[in-house]
Amino acid sequence: MKLAFRNMTMVPRVLYGTGAFDQLTSILEPKRLNPRAPFIFLVDDVFTQYHEFVQRIPIGYEDEIIFVSTLEEPTTNQVDELVQQIILKYKEMPSGIVGIGGGSVMDLTKAVSLLLTNHGNASDYQGWDLIQNSGIFSVGIPTISGTGAEVSRTAVLKGPDIKLGINSDFTTFDQVVLDPDLTADVSKNQWFFTGMDCFIHCVESLNGTFLNAFSQAHGEKAMALCQNVFLKSALSELEKREQLMMASWLGGVSIANSQVGVAHALSYGLSFVKGIKHGLGNCIVIEHLDAYYPEGTQLFRKMRDYQQIDIPKGICENLSEDEYRQMTRIALGLSPLWENALGKNWQSQVNEKVVRGLYEKM
Amino acid sequence: MKLAFRNMTMVPRVLYGTGAFDQLTSILEPKRLNPRAPFIFLVDDVFTQYHEFVQRIPIGYEDEIIFVSTLEEPTTNQVDELVQQIILKYKEMPSGIVGIGGGSVMDLTKAVSLLLTNHGNASDYQGWDLIQNSGIFSVGIPTISGTGAEVSRTAVLKGPDIKLGINSDFTTFDQVVLDPDLTADVSKNQWFFTGMDCFIHCVESLNGTFLNAFSQAHGEKAMALCQNVFLKSALSELEKREQLMMASWLGGVSIANSQVGVAHALSYGLSFVKGIKHGLGNCIVIEHLDAYYPEGTQLFRKMRDYQQIDIPKGICENLSEDEYRQMTRIALGLSPLWENALGKNWQSQVNEKVVRGLYEKM
Repeated sequence: MKLAFRNMTMVPRVLYGTGAFDQLTSILEPKRLNPRAPFIFLVDDVFTQYHEFVQRIPIGYEDEIIFVSTLEEPTTNQVDELVQQIILKYKEMPSGIVGIGGGSVMDLTKAVSLLLTNHGNASDYQGWDLIQNSGIFSVGIPTISGTGAEVSRTAVLKGPDIKLGINSDFTTFDQVVLDPDLTADVSKNQWFFTGMDCFIHCVESLNGTFLNAFSQAHGEKAMALCQNVFLKSALSELEKREQLMMASWLGGVSIANSQVGVAHALSYGLSFVKGIKHGLGNCIVIEHLDAYYPEGTQLFRKMRDYQQIDIPKGICENLSEDEYRQMTRIALGLSPLWENALGKNWQSQVNEKVVRGLYEKM
Repeated sequence: MKLAFRNMTMVPRVLYGTGAFDQLTSILEPKRLNPRAPFIFLVDDVFTQYHEFVQRIPIGYEDEIIFVSTLEEPTTNQVDELVQQIILKYKEMPSGIVGIGGGSVMDLTKAVSLLLTNHGNASDYQGWDLIQNSGIFSVGIPTISGTGAEVSRTAVLKGPDIKLGINSDFTTFDQVVLDPDLTADVSKNQWFFTGMDCFIHCVESLNGTFLNAFSQAHGEKAMALCQNVFLKSALSELEKREQLMMASWLGGVSIANSQVGVAHALSYGLSFVKGIKHGLGNCIVIEHLDAYYPEGTQLFRKMRDYQQIDIPKGICENLSEDEYRQMTRIALGLSPLWENALGKNWQSQVNEKVVRGLYEKM
């Protein structure tokens, strides 16, 4: 049988530049359907403290800024509530939705865009290629670099039973604005954990069985940029922000045509049961993956030590049997990730016992 | 005054894979408007010798293969004739146009797509942002790697007075298929000259004043891949094809957000007056650009020698005054290229005498 290659969806428009955020009006105004069809801005509520920044958001007519908390990872309920709030408030479908924040806000924005035009609840669409209609016009403006959510074809959500993405060709943003200035105020820990999400994407993509030359070229460059950012002291702060923003983008393109692997599978379980955020979860997990990614694990430790970051230990110490079962079920349910990491016969190498053994070390 | 950044147009769908060409039907059929709206395939006439390949082109209904000669670079007249031929033959607008070939066929395909929906002649649109309407659905399938035409927002054509691209946000393909198998039969000289087009894009982009971190990340990886392909003997033939295809893509993305420079400006003049094809023209030119790109020029010579390629000399020996004037006019007319290379005050460093001096050495 012939292998079927994926027809990759790329973000069709990208505005890159330090200060590019102030060109947002020129992007939105041509897309305004009419004065009663607003733009909705979903903004990480950390920005409520940054009045000057909020004033740069170009609202007009009936446009609305909705601040969203990202203390917890985004949920399908949160998406459904936002969709309902927008539908009840406005007589017309919005002209578009603009997400300003980290990976959580990116994923929320993509999901709300889709659920405004697809019936039912967000949880109905967790999985692969279940979405039927394009969403409304969507713009992603990342303010933390690393997740690749600005370029990916997924919107990862915690649902009632599972943490899983809405993966589809319709999920990708219509427009992205990459402005390295917007990531200037990220705290050191968050900068590291989110940056490591990108690094781990590259490790998983470059060591996966789904790898092809397209993913490889993008992944290798993203990996090199991560090493610049986290291991070189000669870079200026602006250069670090620029290079990590590009690493996130290229790493995201790399996994878009391959897949993540063992670290993400385990991290999803950790996040669902223990509420650990994705970037940190990945860091906790990769410490224990020497058997799967020996070089990546070593390189991770080198960056961790160079940046003097403490990774929490003993996370799973007091887990109940039930929690272990739930985590293991979620991790093992992500078969494309395991298949990418270990090949078609991954089930001969990995089972409940192996996964539980890994969790027990964390 | 605030710098205005370009909102880059990206190719929205990309199918990558060795053998991916055979998935073309799955891409085209959903785009077929009706049985009377054909797909037009513009195919480099070198493929008339490859019956087996031509039979793999998925024609149905009233679809048509038009073979085009690429002995000469594409002209605005050629575009106008193709458009007329299609309009006269079919009662309905085609469902789409698919270009299969090197940079010339890519550029022709993009231009025909646009001129089917924009009134007037192709030469009316040579320049920047003159196109008003989207073209018909267009697919680019490169069979030679290096030009970046598969990803660029331009369609370079020789017009009655000038060689200049139709540069616009509408020029970019709607879909690209990257299949490294399709470049297997390119002759060594053409492989080198076209590959050097990519290398020179990277030299010009990375050494230009328009460079930003987005262009840089893409350009650096493309440059590294070129060096793999042309200086490493350890790669297999397939790896070379894969990596050059990715270099072409990434180099194209790099210049899409920056600009080419001195080599392209001079090469355009050479091509217009002497009919020298673009890739070869770039190679002839870069031999004499130590003053502008010292490292790039050296690296070029290293690759040329390693691959044992002869670059023609004495091209301009018997040029008339009139021809020199024409070449110089075309080269100096490309002000964005000079501005990228030398900055806003480029005219203080470059004039007719300087350009003629360079041409005289070639």
